[in-house]
Amino acid sequence: MDQVDFLNGKTRVFGIVGDPIEQVRSPEMVTWEMHQRGMNAVLVPLHVRAADFDEVMPSLLRLHNLDGLIFTIPFKAKALAYAQALGPQATQVGAINALARHPQGHWVGEIFDGLGCVEGLRRRGVSLRGKRVLLLGLGGAGAAIAAAVAGEQPSCLHMFDLQAERCERMAEVVARISPATHIVTAPPDVQGMDVLLNATPVGMLGDARLPLAVTRLPPEMLVFDAIVKPEETPLLALAEACGCTVVRGREMMRGQIAKVVDYFIRPS
Amino acid sequence: MDQVDFLNGKTRVFGIVGDPIEQVRSPEMVTWEMHQRGMNAVLVPLHVRAADFDEVMPSLLRLHNLDGLIFTIPFKAKALAYAQALGPQATQVGAINALARHPQGHWVGEIFDGLGCVEGLRRRGVSLRGKRVLLLGLGGAGAAIAAAVAGEQPSCLHMFDLQAERCERMAEVVARISPATHIVTAPPDVQGMDVLLNATPVGMLGDARLPLAVTRLPPEMLVFDAIVKPEETPLLALAEACGCTVVRGREMMRGQIAKVVDYFIRPS
Repeated sequence: MDQVDFLNGKTRVFGIVGDPIEQVRSPEMVTWEMHQRGMNAVLVPLHVRAADFDEVMPSLLRLHNLDGLIFTIPFKAKALAYAQALGPQATQVGAINALARHPQGHWVGEIFDGLGCVEGLRRRGVSLRGKRVLLLGLGGAGAAIAAAVAGEQPSCLHMFDLQAERCERMAEVVARISPATHIVTAPPDVQGMDVLLNATPVGMLGDARLPLAVTRLPPEMLVFDAIVKPEETPLLALAEACGCTVVRGREMMRGQIAKVVDYFIRPS
Repeated sequence: MDQVDFLNGKTRVFGIVGDPIEQVRSPEMVTWEMHQRGMNAVLVPLHVRAADFDEVMPSLLRLHNLDGLIFTIPFKAKALAYAQALGPQATQVGAINALARHPQGHWVGEIFDGLGCVEGLRRRGVSLRGKRVLLLGLGGAGAAIAAAVAGEQPSCLHMFDLQAERCERMAEVVARISPATHIVTAPPDVQGMDVLLNATPVGMLGDARLPLAVTRLPPEMLVFDAIVKPEETPLLALAEACGCTVVRGREMMRGQIAKVVDYFIRPS
């Protein structure tokens, strides 16, 4: 037959909105996940120029067969304004990376970066409950990871970012979510920590640096790096050399995609 | 790999805009044709409510990785306003069914219904040059077919539509395009005709009627029906019973898709 089997007039359309757009991985990965769930749906890249965002968004949301959007750089904070209701993570973090059309017709928003990290760890059999966690970087993804980790009730959450106001702000958020967690905001120290999470960009795309000043890591430590490219960052290379358990950015991405598709299917 | 192979961040996006949208066949057929040409591209259904068209269109055209749109009911006439330049068919017919992003950045429009019909016939080895052609129906598709048939310089073009002003208007258009063609606008008569083209909706979706009052057709006649569903219309059934050569709506659609993808690749 002179036709493809993954598109037709009944296909529900989803999009990832970003500027630039060519580097995104959601089209191939989210579409795969939706097909695994039996959905007649595709997620396409939508390159919206930053200056056009507020003009284009209302029209996209008016497309009658468009059921959800994912947002990437630089739109995670601005997209919040288009959600008529927010999930608990988005409320805490003040940003969204997914909008879904609620069965009642309005748009609901949530952020899944942090939930994806927790889901990626859960899939490796790792629970953060009662653990001592060191989190580096509290930008967009890091803030979401802090909120999601807090939801798992670690015994201690040590957060560090070069911008002190980010540490203060997230300390308040974490205290609200998990009052029993001991919160530390100070320069990083791996001593006594069970889990190290890197949410800084240090180590990305050929950057040979480590996100903290260490020459070795305790072998019983679990080390996660949110960076997707390269798959093997300098931090993960050191962790492996030291015998640590390693969890990669791709596993967070897979966890996040599963959670986003759950949300697209049952927006709440 | 946990990903599909037909979508990524570099995929160029095309859409078909209509209301309703579920019945369209372009997503699977145009995407197939684009993949055959080696393009990293998909054509997705875009359900724009008729009342939203003029609000949504400027935003769609601002999507930086969207390179073309196809228009179906009820937008072929309204879409004309969004083309900064028109192809020759669109200029004559006053409607477009495709908009393409020109390399210089502006949008150009053309209508391919008629060109698709001529291409469908050409692929069956049929030339209309010097032929006597009877065309029934001068609505959107019919008018486009009249203009495209005129471009082939038939010796005679007999057109009929229940709305007399459509006949008058298309008689003028055909005279401009092919001054040597003998034009007839009168109730249809198959006598002496080489080719019968049905562009009326009579015979669609279980309608048991014929688009003209005949009980048989000359066996040397070529009979084409623009209707796609059902594939076998009452007219085509009669034509086959009478030994005529039969060309189906699907062949026009294939011809049209080839022409539209040519246009998307090299907008002019």
